[in-house]
Amino acid sequence: MKIVLDAMGGDHAPGCVIDGAARAVESRTVRADQLLVAGPGAEIRALLDAAGLTTADVLDAPEVVGMNESPTSVIRTKKRSSIVLGMRAAAEGQAQAFVSAGNTGAVVGAASLVLGRLKGIARPGIAAPMPTRSGPCVVIDVGANIYCKPVHMLQYAIMADEYSRGALGKTDPVVGLLNIGEEEGKGNPLIQEVHALLQASDVRYAGFVEGQDIMRGSVDVVVCEGFVGNVILKVAEGLATFIGEQVFGALKVHPPRPEVGAAISEAFAHLDYAEYGGAPLLGVAAPVIIGHGRSDARAVMNMLGAAQSAVTHDINRHILERLAQSSGKTVP
Amino acid sequence: MKIVLDAMGGDHAPGCVIDGAARAVESRTVRADQLLVAGPGAEIRALLDAAGLTTADVLDAPEVVGMNESPTSVIRTKKRSSIVLGMRAAAEGQAQAFVSAGNTGAVVGAASLVLGRLKGIARPGIAAPMPTRSGPCVVIDVGANIYCKPVHMLQYAIMADEYSRGALGKTDPVVGLLNIGEEEGKGNPLIQEVHALLQASDVRYAGFVEGQDIMRGSVDVVVCEGFVGNVILKVAEGLATFIGEQVFGALKVHPPRPEVGAAISEAFAHLDYAEYGGAPLLGVAAPVIIGHGRSDARAVMNMLGAAQSAVTHDINRHILERLAQSSGKTVP
Repeated sequence: MKIVLDAMGGDHAPGCVIDGAARAVESRTVRADQLLVAGPGAEIRALLDAAGLTTADVLDAPEVVGMNESPTSVIRTKKRSSIVLGMRAAAEGQAQAFVSAGNTGAVVGAASLVLGRLKGIARPGIAAPMPTRSGPCVVIDVGANIYCKPVHMLQYAIMADEYSRGALGKTDPVVGLLNIGEEEGKGNPLIQEVHALLQASDVRYAGFVEGQDIMRGSVDVVVCEGFVGNVILKVAEGLATFIGEQVFGALKVHPPRPEVGAAISEAFAHLDYAEYGGAPLLGVAAPVIIGHGRSDARAVMNMLGAAQSAVTHDINRHILERLAQSSGKTVP
Repeated sequence: MKIVLDAMGGDHAPGCVIDGAARAVESRTVRADQLLVAGPGAEIRALLDAAGLTTADVLDAPEVVGMNESPTSVIRTKKRSSIVLGMRAAAEGQAQAFVSAGNTGAVVGAASLVLGRLKGIARPGIAAPMPTRSGPCVVIDVGANIYCKPVHMLQYAIMADEYSRGALGKTDPVVGLLNIGEEEGKGNPLIQEVHALLQASDVRYAGFVEGQDIMRGSVDVVVCEGFVGNVILKVAEGLATFIGEQVFGALKVHPPRPEVGAAISEAFAHLDYAEYGGAPLLGVAAPVIIGHGRSDARAVMNMLGAAQSAVTHDINRHILERLAQSSGKTVP
């Protein structure tokens, strides 16, 4: 198995990405010879060697994609970037997964166009694991698709269900549909149609859930359309940062005993995006893990772990089997 | 001036509501004789007298609306409830504002049907002040309208701008439009149309903002459609609760010195919904303040303060003037 690692993705690339690869190898998450590291060849080779990753392969990609470049222009004009060439390596079977903390739109675009969709999937979706009282809750979609149709959201439910089983170790995941109330009849026509599809599907469907239910951990998967999911992710990040500032600001004025400070830091660590190692883009032909632009070495290590796990558990095969089973019954 | 106070609204009604009224009178937020308290007459009279609010008037409303009753059925079948009769009192000029922590949908429905819209406003919207680094940021709409058209959202911007000036003391509020990226061209057609309307309007428009910008306090008003706004409010509430549990759970294991504990509690108090005293429903013929179902006495007191302030600053007149000024230029 090989995993493409985009060395040029994220605010702290390539240093942080290479550090993350080294930590992943050190912790035996992956072997160095399983890495195909994409970026400007000579620079990346030198960094890998300096980090002791001499058996990692380099995929020479001289062009660098900025975090705010338009995805469509990237795919048209930066054909020799780590994102486009890395995705091509995955498409052609030189690698089985792709990991990047780079420009999300460009990764989603390249995954759709270069790698291609999984057969039968109408739209890929980004599945973000969010911290809750009872382990991660997967929110799908968080921004790949802002023109959702009912069948897209049904497929999101099925894919996130399989991801929860394969990569997060949930045995019989419960799926909720995000709405603004729990009563029947609430929500817009899209929500009502998805509700009917999920009721008729083979997912363990708990009905409508509301925003606060995500953190309660009452369900394992929350399905929503990409605009709403993206806002959720960013509001949660903004609020966690804001609360952290308030609390640690107060502790600067009134310094706690070391063990109290450590306990509070530990409580906030549960909320850390880096814990979950990125969000998988589900519904494309190979596992693609998308990281936060702020990803640090630990986040990159965990992203490699998520890619490894998605390949090992053969999540795409499971998704295809589920689609085949349910296609006659549920997919219009 | 009189304010209708729905004694039967909220999870802890009527006890908590009467306590809140007493605190509001004690703190000179309102005078007792400015209150028109709606609920079952004899019970409410006895509670008011016991609380020393002998000069408060009672509006006898024998029917009680449950928190989860369907708004349309409430308005049809519970014509003698505190919500419907209270709204009628405001419509007929017996009172100048209406305050309730009850069934939000029923309050919005009764406000629209019994009280009526402000002239020229297409759809009322709920404006929720959220805590940020630099004072409250008003998010509008948080659930009154899930079928938003561009002109509704333009009017939300104008109304929340006036509310920020009148009730929150902002001098020249900056308005942002919620999107999933800050670059031009991002978002769906609705967002693009609202963007063009806001650019052409007389509001101080800062362009697109993202979820995390709300808590950063980079703008004073964030405009979004009601489904998204409702999810934001509930995710923020759920996450703040979850983080609080994590932090205070850690402190139970490692008890801090009293002043450290107090500093942390103080940091969380900034996040408390009760601080802001409910969310105004803007765009109806008189100020209507909607509270959280969990409202405690302090929240009710602050809701009465918000109603008082909205009447004193004559926010509806300011909104009407702004609409008149800008109607030729911006409202299609």
